Amino acid sequence: MSNPSLLILPGDGIGPEVMAEVRKIIDWFGANRGLQFDVSEDLVGGAAYDAHGKPLSDETMAKAQEVDAVLLGAVGGPKYDDLDFSLKPERGLLRLRKEMDLYSNLRPAQCFDALADFSSLKKDVVAGLDIMIVRELTSGVYFGEPRGIFEEGNERVGINTQRYTESEIERAARSAFELAMRRNKKLCSMEKANVMESGILWREVVTRVGQEYPEVELSHMYADNGAMQLVRAPKQFDVIVTDNLFGDVLSDCAAMLTGSLGMLPSASLGAPMANGRPKAMYEPVHGSAPDITGQGKANPIACILSFAMALRYSFDQGDEAGRLEAAIEKVLADGVRTADLLAEEGVQPVSTSEMGDAILAAL
Amino acid sequence: MSNPSLLILPGDGIGPEVMAEVRKIIDWFGANRGLQFDVSEDLVGGAAYDAHGKPLSDETMAKAQEVDAVLLGAVGGPKYDDLDFSLKPERGLLRLRKEMDLYSNLRPAQCFDALADFSSLKKDVVAGLDIMIVRELTSGVYFGEPRGIFEEGNERVGINTQRYTESEIERAARSAFELAMRRNKKLCSMEKANVMESGILWREVVTRVGQEYPEVELSHMYADNGAMQLVRAPKQFDVIVTDNLFGDVLSDCAAMLTGSLGMLPSASLGAPMANGRPKAMYEPVHGSAPDITGQGKANPIACILSFAMALRYSFDQGDEAGRLEAAIEKVLADGVRTADLLAEEGVQPVSTSEMGDAILAAL
Ligand SMILES: CC(C)[C@H](C(=O)O)[C@@H](O)C(=O)O
Ligand SMILES: CC(C)[C@H](C(=O)O)[C@@H](O)C(=O)O
Repeated sequence: MSNPSLLILPGDGIGPEVMAEVRKIIDWFGANRGLQFDVSEDLVGGAAYDAHGKPLSDETMAKAQEVDAVLLGAVGGPKYDDLDFSLKPERGLLRLRKEMDLYSNLRPAQCFDALADFSSLKKDVVAGLDIMIVRELTSGVYFGEPRGIFEEGNERVGINTQRYTESEIERAARSAFELAMRRNKKLCSMEKANVMESGILWREVVTRVGQEYPEVELSHMYADNGAMQLVRAPKQFDVIVTDNLFGDVLSDCAAMLTGSLGMLPSASLGAPMANGRPKAMYEPVHGSAPDITGQGKANPIACILSFAMALRYSFDQGDEAGRLEAAIEKVLADGVRTADLLAEEGVQPVSTSEMGDAILAAL
Repeated sequence: MSNPSLLILPGDGIGPEVMAEVRKIIDWFGANRGLQFDVSEDLVGGAAYDAHGKPLSDETMAKAQEVDAVLLGAVGGPKYDDLDFSLKPERGLLRLRKEMDLYSNLRPAQCFDALADFSSLKKDVVAGLDIMIVRELTSGVYFGEPRGIFEEGNERVGINTQRYTESEIERAARSAFELAMRRNKKLCSMEKANVMESGILWREVVTRVGQEYPEVELSHMYADNGAMQLVRAPKQFDVIVTDNLFGDVLSDCAAMLTGSLGMLPSASLGAPMANGRPKAMYEPVHGSAPDITGQGKANPIACILSFAMALRYSFDQGDEAGRLEAAIEKVLADGVRTADLLAEEGVQPVSTSEMGDAILAAL
């Protein structure tokens, strides 16, 4: 049997820097745990635009469709701010999500014990926090038509369309219930059913899917209240399921509760391929961080934890994922910190590659 | 000259309870400060549905159009959960906003000194916090057409439309710049211009209006990052302007940072009427709180502060508004607390009406 294949798309900004550390980790698993991958690398975002004039070439798109998993760094940067909408770095990322049909975006918001002090929230509110947000990723206002800026009378109007079919809601809901079954069997669905008809349909379909999961305690919350409750008492949640746009905002809000944005991975999963593995892309939640690019300051942990998610969700290697996560916790417990994790004065930050090396050593 | 007119719409849940305290305050200003109002009262939300079979009668709507200001309590409750969308309590509120054309919704997120400990955020992150969120309130996905649940092939699809014309963005932006001029001259506009064309138009128009306010330092932020930054370091903001849906979520997030949801008022303002006063409705940010309805536990301060906003924005009585706000701060400093404000054990909470009386005494 041939090795499973990984396509690495480092992208822009700190993407290449953090991805270099992930490659060390991948190599370690190959050399020491018998987990060899066929790794190829390509361009996405601004880097692809610079090379090919668009944020994702058709060739790269085709490769992404063929591999077992994609690892993405980050896209975007001020250099590309004035590009036409269709050429922006983000479009490369959105094309990958859409054409690979990655409808289920898993975003853990986890507070690491060693970093609980680092949150802007009180320690007792966030210590031990472990939420999983399931964000629908291929539909909603991100992709709905009609969209654009149109002339109307003597002025322009900007239009986007929120659109959800029953089957789109159903498959996202199902993946959230499946996750809830493997966790604490509590699922909260968020929408604005009091204002939006798409939210009414969302609530109805999630409720219907819930009948297949009688063990899961299902609740519904308006998304504005969801934002409040995340800030007030985040530990009330286990799994949250929500649409593409609310998921974008609420998962960032949840991520920041942990105080460790540089620590948070994500997985975007689609339907099973012929070999049984889901279509999958893994990426850190943080962005391309142009302000610290090229300075060796970036925290590679979110990207490394994204690889751990790949081990778990694409390659059924939950134990090896756990090994990697434990190594990271050990390094943190030992007080090793990149600059973004420095709450106290006096501690010397390590560089991106020193953090990677420390994790290797802990492995 | 006749007295200015106020229409009171207590609504549902704790609405009538907190509004009763506002009436005491209104009477006090009439008796002691020469500020008499012609006050009338009517129904909205579930209360209106129970009486008339719809959440706002045409007669009440007509009255709201004629008065100098509307004070609203809260709408909604589980009793009305199964009503058809068009009959839900929320539709009464949304009809008022839309037909009065109240495009500028001011939502202060202010952390009261006496209550800084009560936030789930660390004290130094929120102490002294004083943000004003300006939320566009009459357009966007709340009102855009087409909308509804439609058959498509062999399934249903839920559709809502995000729509903003240049002039809608312009007037909301202008009101935010005007506010920024009277505050710290810092305005941050939030949208998803990286994903939504309506966000691109939003950013473009806000930037153009900004040229009329060269003294105001204007910045732009993606709404997901906005949610993060509100949690991470809210004091970086002075005035925030955003659309109807992002405003709904972000203002609730900001409100919860202060830890005192029962304390936060709002003003919804439209164009000037013939007498120069803006069309206006004032309401607390909190909802109808069915869980504590009828128990005398509700905190009337948000609703009383909404009346203070009416004094300031509708009746040009900034000094009298300040007097009322100072009375509330004094009461809080004295340790008077409704149940929602109790962080420590051992302190006895006061009832809704005792809080109202304490504020009267402080006046
Ligand atoms: C970069 C951007 C297009 C993207 C999104 O809006 O989905 C990002 O914010 C995210 O959450 O992954
Ligand atoms: C009650 C509801 C319709 C309303 C809204 O969504 O605007 C509320 O959440 C608010 O923020 O005033």
